[in-house]
Amino acid sequence: MNLHGPDEPVFLPMGFRWSATKAGIKASGRSDVALAEAPLGASAAAMFTRNRVAAAPLKVGREHLRKSKGRVRAVLVNAGNANCATGAPGVLAAEQSCAALGAALEAAPQFIIPSSTGIIGVPLPVEKLIAAIPPVVAGRGDGVDSLKAFATAIMTTDTRMKMASTEFAAGRKKVCVAGVCKGSGMIHPNMATMLVYLFTDLDAEPKQLQGELRAAVDPTFHAISVDGDTSTNDTVLLLASAASKVKLSDGGVAKKFAEALRGVCASLAEQIVRDGEGAQHLVRLRIAGAKSVKEARTIACSIATSPLVKTAWAGCDPNWGRILSSVGKSGVAVDPAKIDIYFGPQQVCRKGTAHPFDEKQAHEYLKQAEYEIRVELARGKSSLEFLTCDLSEEYVHINADYST
Amino acid sequence: MNLHGPDEPVFLPMGFRWSATKAGIKASGRSDVALAEAPLGASAAAMFTRNRVAAAPLKVGREHLRKSKGRVRAVLVNAGNANCATGAPGVLAAEQSCAALGAALEAAPQFIIPSSTGIIGVPLPVEKLIAAIPPVVAGRGDGVDSLKAFATAIMTTDTRMKMASTEFAAGRKKVCVAGVCKGSGMIHPNMATMLVYLFTDLDAEPKQLQGELRAAVDPTFHAISVDGDTSTNDTVLLLASAASKVKLSDGGVAKKFAEALRGVCASLAEQIVRDGEGAQHLVRLRIAGAKSVKEARTIACSIATSPLVKTAWAGCDPNWGRILSSVGKSGVAVDPAKIDIYFGPQQVCRKGTAHPFDEKQAHEYLKQAEYEIRVELARGKSSLEFLTCDLSEEYVHINADYST
Repeated sequence: MNLHGPDEPVFLPMGFRWSATKAGIKASGRSDVALAEAPLGASAAAMFTRNRVAAAPLKVGREHLRKSKGRVRAVLVNAGNANCATGAPGVLAAEQSCAALGAALEAAPQFIIPSSTGIIGVPLPVEKLIAAIPPVVAGRGDGVDSLKAFATAIMTTDTRMKMASTEFAAGRKKVCVAGVCKGSGMIHPNMATMLVYLFTDLDAEPKQLQGELRAAVDPTFHAISVDGDTSTNDTVLLLASAASKVKLSDGGVAKKFAEALRGVCASLAEQIVRDGEGAQHLVRLRIAGAKSVKEARTIACSIATSPLVKTAWAGCDPNWGRILSSVGKSGVAVDPAKIDIYFGPQQVCRKGTAHPFDEKQAHEYLKQAEYEIRVELARGKSSLEFLTCDLSEEYVHINADYST
Repeated sequence: MNLHGPDEPVFLPMGFRWSATKAGIKASGRSDVALAEAPLGASAAAMFTRNRVAAAPLKVGREHLRKSKGRVRAVLVNAGNANCATGAPGVLAAEQSCAALGAALEAAPQFIIPSSTGIIGVPLPVEKLIAAIPPVVAGRGDGVDSLKAFATAIMTTDTRMKMASTEFAAGRKKVCVAGVCKGSGMIHPNMATMLVYLFTDLDAEPKQLQGELRAAVDPTFHAISVDGDTSTNDTVLLLASAASKVKLSDGGVAKKFAEALRGVCASLAEQIVRDGEGAQHLVRLRIAGAKSVKEARTIACSIATSPLVKTAWAGCDPNWGRILSSVGKSGVAVDPAKIDIYFGPQQVCRKGTAHPFDEKQAHEYLKQAEYEIRVELARGKSSLEFLTCDLSEEYVHINADYST
């Protein structure tokens, strides 16, 4: 698969238009409203946060997808305000913005999906958002610059734009899959959320798309952790324009599409972890020999959310005891006497006890910007790769910074 | 209840002797071996870590309590080495040290409980521990200084000795309950563990004591969190000498004892959180209106382990949105639209949305060394007080410090 990252040419799916503008919602004055428009009849699939405190746009988006039976004409995103913990007025504000955009695009409100990211608990300045609709609609374009403008406007504490794309052949035709996202520390002071927008020109029904999305998200966005917090606004949305005239049900297409979608999601997920607040190291945790992928994920999460493990990583400290202890507290009935741990090429723990290793070499290995830690459980045949990062003083500094 | 803290006179239970010495296990050269001796036939109750990676002394201690049917003559503690992830040699080392102390006290090894705290994955220098037995036995005393020497020798990263005691009357007799513990950051670089030793001169059977211990630990040591990590060596041990000649089954004694034991445990638990690594604030989380205490604890843990909440506390930031979001991600089926949040006297969130409050006053409130945050769920009648602390840059600094 030829996968392009954020700095390479984009495989641009046909049928979409993107745009962005400044509505004055971000305190910085940067672009903060983004629009993605799909053609009439485009299919959608979505996954939302499992946090019980779901923001107003998520409630409205879920309801719209139900009413429209998974058809979407446009997505309207604002950054700078999460429209979360805003009660009934928040829901009304999300509805009003959808109605206003729908009117501009000659679409009923249920074909519009709203998204918000930013401060929690502050009323959405809906009048600013609605005032931005005419310019953002007027600015629509189907080129790379328009998609990049979209990807830039949705950023909050992200230090860089996040984008990935790929294509695959289906007979003489081509199908493109492109995605953009935001999310750096999962949540920053008052700033919330991972938002992911995926676009393809494949022809697929909403129900088929939903299955594909779930399968792609599980090993990617569900296998990363920056700080273990689940935001109130997390959203992954996949839109399919059908403009390629290739059907998901065509011979051999489903497999290629699944691979392409997963590839784009994996790249975006990795970009999020790399941009983690204060992160100095991208850590590839490989959990092997688990009884199930679910079990491997439970263990990976236990390691990746341990402040002791994450601070050891910040200090490039080859402290395998903390990793072993995190495996032990995961709740999985592991047998410590069977656990092996490796820092890249070096084994550091064998059958639950110290394995002689070169500490200096391990320290140098852990100084790298990116490295791998492997935990072998010897319980079964399932494995998982999980991406995470260290917990630095800079993370605390960013998140403890009190500014009102 | 007249409860004495670490700097006040100690209510000293009769029948015990304590001692401490230097075995050269701590790199600092400070005292690192502690002995507590109970009279023949003393009863014991114990609770050990739920971490699957349990250290060798815990395995040996469990087995000894089973063999002795809950009778204990002595506890031998070493600090500086956790004897964890040390395999079969670690278990043998713990056994050998029990046998050596047993021989010195004319007791079978199953009447000795071993405890260790310190670095994980390094073989216990058992010869140093065994060499320390004659001097530590020779140094036994039944006075306050001896108990304080015990409490000091078990410290690792603790910045202060932790001790609490109380007494109650039973007719003309008196019963004392005293406790000492160690544990500052749950785990420090390679240093592990909360160890708690409780002594009483009550007369009670091991089985009765176990029930009393469980009831006292649940609202105290099970309701605190420094960094959310569960150590491999966590131990709470209660010894009863019967020297007061007051029986637990005597009229009115059970209730008084339960109160006294809980008071001592609560004081020790609070001392641990106050001494949390890098902690600047002691936070009393009160979760009210839960359907059960278990549910309240789940929510308290979700708040108390969120890096975003804890870093906001480090910055004295009245960020109630992060607290609300942590309640939402706890897994409990809360209704966000019913949640109220208070910072001390000020309400900051009402029915899941912003409640107007004086930000400056809230910021000043959160600058205090100790304060209260109340979350009301309006789901039921259960409540819980949970103690935790902030996550400071100092915590990261302490735990990222790489030194080999």
